[in-house]
Amino acid sequence: MSASQLHPFDTLTPGEIQLGAAILRKAFPGVALRFKRIDVLEPIKKDVVPYLEAERLGQPLPTKPARLLFSYFHRLDTLGFFKAVLNVETRRPVYIKELPKDVQGPADVDELIEIEEACMKHPAVLAEIEKMQLPAGYTVCNDPWIYGTDSATETRRLAQCYMYIIEVDHPQSNHYSLPCTFSPVFDQVTKELVRIDYLPTGKDAKTQPTQPWKPVKCVQYAHDLLDEPTRTDLKPYIVRQPEGPSFSAEGQEVSWQKWKFRVGFNNRDGLIIYNATFDGRQTFYRLSMSEMTVPYGDPRKPYHRKQAFDAGDVGFGITANQLALGCDCLGHIKYFDGYRCDSRGNPVLLKNVICMHEQDNGLQHKHSNYRNNEATVVRNRELVLQMICTVSNYEYVLAWIFDQAGNIEHEVRATGILSTMPIDNDGTTVPWGTIVGPGVMAAYHQHVFSLRIDPAIDGHNNTVFYEDSVPIPVDELNTYGMGYTTEKTIVKQAGFADLSVERNRTFKIRNDGKINPISLKPIAYKLHAAPSQMLLMSADSFARKRAAFSEHAVWVTRYKDDELYAAGEFTNQSRSDTGLSVWAARGDDTENTDIVLWHTFGLTHNPRPEDFPVMPAERISVMLKPDGFFTKNPALDVPASNQSFNRSTLHEESKASCCGPTANL
Amino acid sequence: MSASQLHPFDTLTPGEIQLGAAILRKAFPGVALRFKRIDVLEPIKKDVVPYLEAERLGQPLPTKPARLLFSYFHRLDTLGFFKAVLNVETRRPVYIKELPKDVQGPADVDELIEIEEACMKHPAVLAEIEKMQLPAGYTVCNDPWIYGTDSATETRRLAQCYMYIIEVDHPQSNHYSLPCTFSPVFDQVTKELVRIDYLPTGKDAKTQPTQPWKPVKCVQYAHDLLDEPTRTDLKPYIVRQPEGPSFSAEGQEVSWQKWKFRVGFNNRDGLIIYNATFDGRQTFYRLSMSEMTVPYGDPRKPYHRKQAFDAGDVGFGITANQLALGCDCLGHIKYFDGYRCDSRGNPVLLKNVICMHEQDNGLQHKHSNYRNNEATVVRNRELVLQMICTVSNYEYVLAWIFDQAGNIEHEVRATGILSTMPIDNDGTTVPWGTIVGPGVMAAYHQHVFSLRIDPAIDGHNNTVFYEDSVPIPVDELNTYGMGYTTEKTIVKQAGFADLSVERNRTFKIRNDGKINPISLKPIAYKLHAAPSQMLLMSADSFARKRAAFSEHAVWVTRYKDDELYAAGEFTNQSRSDTGLSVWAARGDDTENTDIVLWHTFGLTHNPRPEDFPVMPAERISVMLKPDGFFTKNPALDVPASNQSFNRSTLHEESKASCCGPTANL
Repeated sequence: MSASQLHPFDTLTPGEIQLGAAILRKAFPGVALRFKRIDVLEPIKKDVVPYLEAERLGQPLPTKPARLLFSYFHRLDTLGFFKAVLNVETRRPVYIKELPKDVQGPADVDELIEIEEACMKHPAVLAEIEKMQLPAGYTVCNDPWIYGTDSATETRRLAQCYMYIIEVDHPQSNHYSLPCTFSPVFDQVTKELVRIDYLPTGKDAKTQPTQPWKPVKCVQYAHDLLDEPTRTDLKPYIVRQPEGPSFSAEGQEVSWQKWKFRVGFNNRDGLIIYNATFDGRQTFYRLSMSEMTVPYGDPRKPYHRKQAFDAGDVGFGITANQLALGCDCLGHIKYFDGYRCDSRGNPVLLKNVICMHEQDNGLQHKHSNYRNNEATVVRNRELVLQMICTVSNYEYVLAWIFDQAGNIEHEVRATGILSTMPIDNDGTTVPWGTIVGPGVMAAYHQHVFSLRIDPAIDGHNNTVFYEDSVPIPVDELNTYGMGYTTEKTIVKQAGFADLSVERNRTFKIRNDGKINPISLKPIAYKLHAAPSQMLLMSADSFARKRAAFSEHAVWVTRYKDDELYAAGEFTNQSRSDTGLSVWAARGDDTENTDIVLWHTFGLTHNPRPEDFPVMPAERISVMLKPDGFFTKNPALDVPASNQSFNRSTLHEESKASCCGPTANL
Repeated sequence: MSASQLHPFDTLTPGEIQLGAAILRKAFPGVALRFKRIDVLEPIKKDVVPYLEAERLGQPLPTKPARLLFSYFHRLDTLGFFKAVLNVETRRPVYIKELPKDVQGPADVDELIEIEEACMKHPAVLAEIEKMQLPAGYTVCNDPWIYGTDSATETRRLAQCYMYIIEVDHPQSNHYSLPCTFSPVFDQVTKELVRIDYLPTGKDAKTQPTQPWKPVKCVQYAHDLLDEPTRTDLKPYIVRQPEGPSFSAEGQEVSWQKWKFRVGFNNRDGLIIYNATFDGRQTFYRLSMSEMTVPYGDPRKPYHRKQAFDAGDVGFGITANQLALGCDCLGHIKYFDGYRCDSRGNPVLLKNVICMHEQDNGLQHKHSNYRNNEATVVRNRELVLQMICTVSNYEYVLAWIFDQAGNIEHEVRATGILSTMPIDNDGTTVPWGTIVGPGVMAAYHQHVFSLRIDPAIDGHNNTVFYEDSVPIPVDELNTYGMGYTTEKTIVKQAGFADLSVERNRTFKIRNDGKINPISLKPIAYKLHAAPSQMLLMSADSFARKRAAFSEHAVWVTRYKDDELYAAGEFTNQSRSDTGLSVWAARGDDTENTDIVLWHTFGLTHNPRPEDFPVMPAERISVMLKPDGFFTKNPALDVPASNQSFNRSTLHEESKASCCGPTANL
């Protein structure tokens, strides 16, 4: 498919990866390059909007915006780190620039494998392993970890390798259950060992040289490694859609129940929703999870550096699982693929990284007239777009869920395996973590997400305001003290705001130019936020400085191209935020203009033993709901729920047990 | 079935209703009685626990506790209001007592119909209707409303009838769209008209005599009254369980995926969960929605009295919808029935008031080993027990949802129709409500629930505490300011506490007598609370005084029989709380003893136009999660999710669209 055939929001093609690599090789003749990223650059908004509007209104299509790629790469001679923007049509660079020495690009797959291998064969590491005197059959592996930050001057690209014991030769042996007490640090560019850190295992920060391992039982999660048998009393639950799904997909454009949008994907955000319209009306220009940071609360070295930015340091796109039919989704499934480049600039197919399916989510609305018991019942059919990202030990299930009443939900499920630390198996406990198995502790930590909401509520000129519910003073009108009302605060300049459960603070995005003829107020969508604890680390900590977005629940910025990621473009070993706090500080006018709303929410995760060895999903959900966007419930025209449509089955015992109580006393 | 065959938690039988009425008639020879309630009295806990324990442990069963009924009734000669407790085995009253004049019992179905009829035929009401000069074909109806409270001396039992215009002779014509401007007040005992209130229709409290109605279009919700056609692009979504459900039910005892519990039902609570055990271990003795209050924020007379206690004033049980296969639930459904008495003491079958079915709720846990992409995936099968209550205009969908990882969720969905007020159709707006249709306003209001959680975490001696996540001061150990820990506060005496999102405050119920061998802490369950705004009405208002439970998110009391309902036993026209605030004020010792945890949560509902004419369900959810109750994830043994079990379908277009981007550039 040529660039001119692609839609501006279409994802990267393998040919584009090859082209990008070729353009850059040509720009550096004779120089070996190592590619970290080649991906599509978001189209310039002002250039793409006329195209989208013509599409939406069925008008002749104007020229498409330029198709641009970007790349992060290293020169292997100078080891310099570069960013380039490339034009697909002209096959030329728009610019190539070398980045400062202290800027680290994200981890890439090849790099992680290289470090893992370098670590496993390094003599000093092998010597430490030897000291553990492991029983026969036991082996060792390592997870190279994002190094985090504890220095304002470090410019090396470092990896902290956490080492674990593998109990059994099985692809799913849970090494996280058996952490070692030493942790080598490698230079990721030179592949040299920088030092070996020793991990504290007692109540305090004391460490000791590697000791012979005292065997404990590994807590396994894989079914064929469990001591207990698999349950046999779970019966199949099968979803049938005999007439097919209610959605249709043409390339990346999806239509479903008055919704129309494009499914986007890139290496960093993973799943993106573009240009969502309901019944032909614009709602949101772009929706994505922009960042997530996970700082750990164990203050001891080297854990004080444990802070990952899972999107910026690695990427939800490149860690997205390749999903399998019947495993990750239920029902009638459509999959979308993506691509990434490898370090040599070759395309790698990311098959089935996004799944799309419908689900039934109970009742959407019901009313019975109690006089005659005549009821109108409408079920809540939803369309789910989901990706599942494995970032080393953890899994994140990130889903955008559309419903028939104009609602868009973003649901996060945190699952996978806790990041673990060794602890003396002698009754030792620590105040910053939970013992989750013999000799293994999981430190308290936080997951703080930043959801980026780029609205287009009937157009791009929008205003964010918040509404608090407050008592009306007791006065002549409010004699009995029952009255309450709302107080509105308009976010007139870029900045941040906090939630307030006590005041039922609700953030809304309105279009001042369109008045709802029923409510007589501007049309709007509201954010059903997830009230969450903000970052617990000290204000002076690198954790806070790097993740300023995690200090406030809501941020509003004026739209600018390239301002996509809450903690800034480069987060790996960053020392300070180069994202939201910088953009908000400009104090741009944000009233009745093109703005972006960012919502910070998350989990303070103080692990339970039940979260190990693999964690039952912890769900958090955020919703975008029409608030006077429509003149009435937009789902009224959804067909009634009835048996001829739903074909439910009556439980056989039902009759028998009903008869029980009716028999005479 | 004789009483001795019934399980202590079995619901009321029709024979018991007849027996109860007979015992009371015998106690008042020659006196006509009007029955408001005949229902089962909860068994005395100390008497039933040995029976439950013997059952659980498979030991010989001791004598059952006495089977007791209770009744609320009026003598029709003196009009006195009584409460009686009756012994089913001895067929005698335990006691009969007349209640004070200011105590009003709950509304009953016959009474509501009688008032509705009395109102519709009263000459003064007919005269008001006449004044509206309605067009041909238009009729009028009324919803008798709970009177609320604005007087410390009122002892009459009153009903405020809100009047509405019916546009079309159809059982689902939405009269709430066309409210009249007058509201008759009736004495519910004498059926006499007390007065007619006139409703303000402008910006202030001014009222005027009934005027000729200025026709506006009714906003209808029933499919055959809509202007727009029903959507035709929604395809069937059918759940098949070819091997039957994973649950089994013997009478009211349900077994499912290591859970075992009894499904209870009474006229007030509706659905109750009794004696839930997981894998034979006790978790909760009794779970139910104890109360809900809905005060309205329009301060003007007579709206200042709009405060309903939907459980206490009416009853979730008697308002529970009789559910129909394929309408209210999807899949393989078991129904449970209930009974109520009518005003003459006859049993009335409440058929299918509770439904039970399984549902698939996405992923329960997943982990992929990124080295080899070998994944363990377990889906989240849930068991749902649901009732849907219609309280005049509103619907509440109340569900208890069990999962395979030891979690119990309580989900509330608010749907149905807003309580509406007339408003001048001339651009008038008010600061305490939203215009939701031509000439119709929906006032801001709150729904505040009290969930009653009677725990038995491995036994009945439990302790509630809360845990805040707080930074560790920067010191020698916490050099980099990354550390955080938890602060525990034990609720040693009955009382209340507030949530704190800022501190991630988490309430837990532990058994001090059992230490988890892995975490080395007492076994516990935690409450995943729903942080909500508390009541907005002034501290001096009757609304606050009557619903003291709505002032704090968490209450802890020492268990006492008969202390079941957060706002007290009698809420109708109550002047003050006789529930939680009274019981908590005793300051009982609540450490390591039989305690009850109450959670207040709710919705501040400032209506949207989209909430009319019938409201897309607004969901709130509370969870009870094991927290060191198990030594590891209790769902590990759930079978893996795979295609041979789930039989999903691949979307046909999938291949075609995937090929797009893979074609060469």
